[in-house]
This record gives sequence, C-alpha cells and structure tokens, in this order.
Amino acid sequence: MQYVGSAKITTPAISPLAGEPIKRADAERLAGVLKAFADPARLRLISLIQSSPSGEASVTDLTAPLGLSQPTVSHHLRILTEAGLLERDKRGVWVYYRLVPSAIAGIADLLTPPRKRAMKKVR
Amino acid sequence: MQYVGSAKITTPAISPLAGEPIKRADAERLAGVLKAFADPARLRLISLIQSSPSGEASVTDLTAPLGLSQPTVSHHLRILTEAGLLERDKRGVWVYYRLVPSAIAGIADLLTPPRKRAMKKVR
Repeated sequence: MQYVGSAKITTPAISPLAGEPIKRADAERLAGVLKAFADPARLRLISLIQSSPSGEASVTDLTAPLGLSQPTVSHHLRILTEAGLLERDKRGVWVYYRLVPSAIAGIADLLTPPRKRAMKKVR
Repeated sequence: MQYVGSAKITTPAISPLAGEPIKRADAERLAGVLKAFADPARLRLISLIQSSPSGEASVTDLTAPLGLSQPTVSHHLRILTEAGLLERDKRGVWVYYRLVPSAIAGIADLLTPPRKRAMKKVR
C-alpha cells in the first residue's frame, strides 16, 4: 500500500507473469506520481536530499544549491510531499524533508522490465 | 550510455557514495524522459506491450484494448519512441514496437534510493 496525498492506492496491477496489463485507474494514479518526478528542479531537489549526509534537508539548506528562491523551493517540496515522495518532520521551528524510500522503490519496480522482475522472483 | 531521441546522454551523475547531486543538464534530460512516461495512456500502452506474449505489438494490436483511435495510439507511440523508451521494427507493411529494456532499467535505477544502490555495489 502506498499513500499519494490523501488517496489510498494499491500497487498498480502490472502482473507480467499473468500477462495482465495495468488498469486504467492505476495508470492514472501512477501518472500523477510520475508527473511530480518529471521536473528538472524537483529531480535536483530529490537528488540533493538523497546526497545529504543525514538524508534530510530543510528549505534553507536547499535554496542556495538549487539557485531558487525559498517560495519556489517550498512549492516544489509541497508537490513532492503531496505525491507521497517526501515526508516532513517538524522539529522546533525547523521542518526537515526526507525521501519516502518505499514510494520511490515502488515506482522503480514498476518501471523495471517484467523479464528482469520475473527472473528475480522465479530463480 | 543511453540514447534519447537523437541526443546522446550519459547516465546522470547521481553518485550517492561521493555525495554528488545530479547535474542541472542531466536533470533536464531525465525530466524529459519521465514526462514521456507520466501519462496514463502511455503507461497503459507500455504495460500492454510488456504483457504481450511476444513482447511486441503493432498499432492495430493496441487500439482496441486501449479504446483509443489509431492516430492517437500512433501519437503516443511516437512520443515514447522519440524518448528512447520504445524501438520500432518494420517488417513488410507492419511496424512492431517493443520496449528498450536498458532505457527503462536505467530510469528505474536512478529512482532507486541511494542506500539500496550503495549496498548492491559495496556488499
């Protein structure tokens, strides 16, 4: 189970062994999450958070390396959080963002060609 | 090395062990490929091709299951081919499309959280 915003979604039914294509509703949900990813600034932001030693970053940590204003960084962080890709942790006056590894691994798995996944499962 | 359309691209420099974030130019190229993915009809189309027994499909194989017109299916196939995600094989009067597994696996790998990838490499 993954949570995208407030909507509860199940893993889309790409089932390569059974030969079942993805369902329309699942394709629409997955496309929404991929759209959150498909932006150069958001990819750099995710990459910066991933590469930080603590695995988390605040808005002010991100503005200088991205070369973007604080409102713009906050906007991108909100889109990624609403898509279920980042989670917020408020500590005092600071808010730290970190990746939700299961959400990202889930998408990576869906994009992995079925032969490779089938081999992993069967062998 | 991956080829996206006619542009030669190197794998974006997400290097979790060195702590290097993705470069701006790589983020822009990757966002372009993800945009090709981030569409419900194209996700269903990829999934249908993946789940076909031969691993390939023609435009006419795809129109009925997708419930879309032939020009619309051709439009989506062209976007995916230009993004380097599908390859065409013309055999007589028929054109068959199949996934480019390395292109899709490359994206899946980039989306895999660095800790998981670092563990794969180091251990």
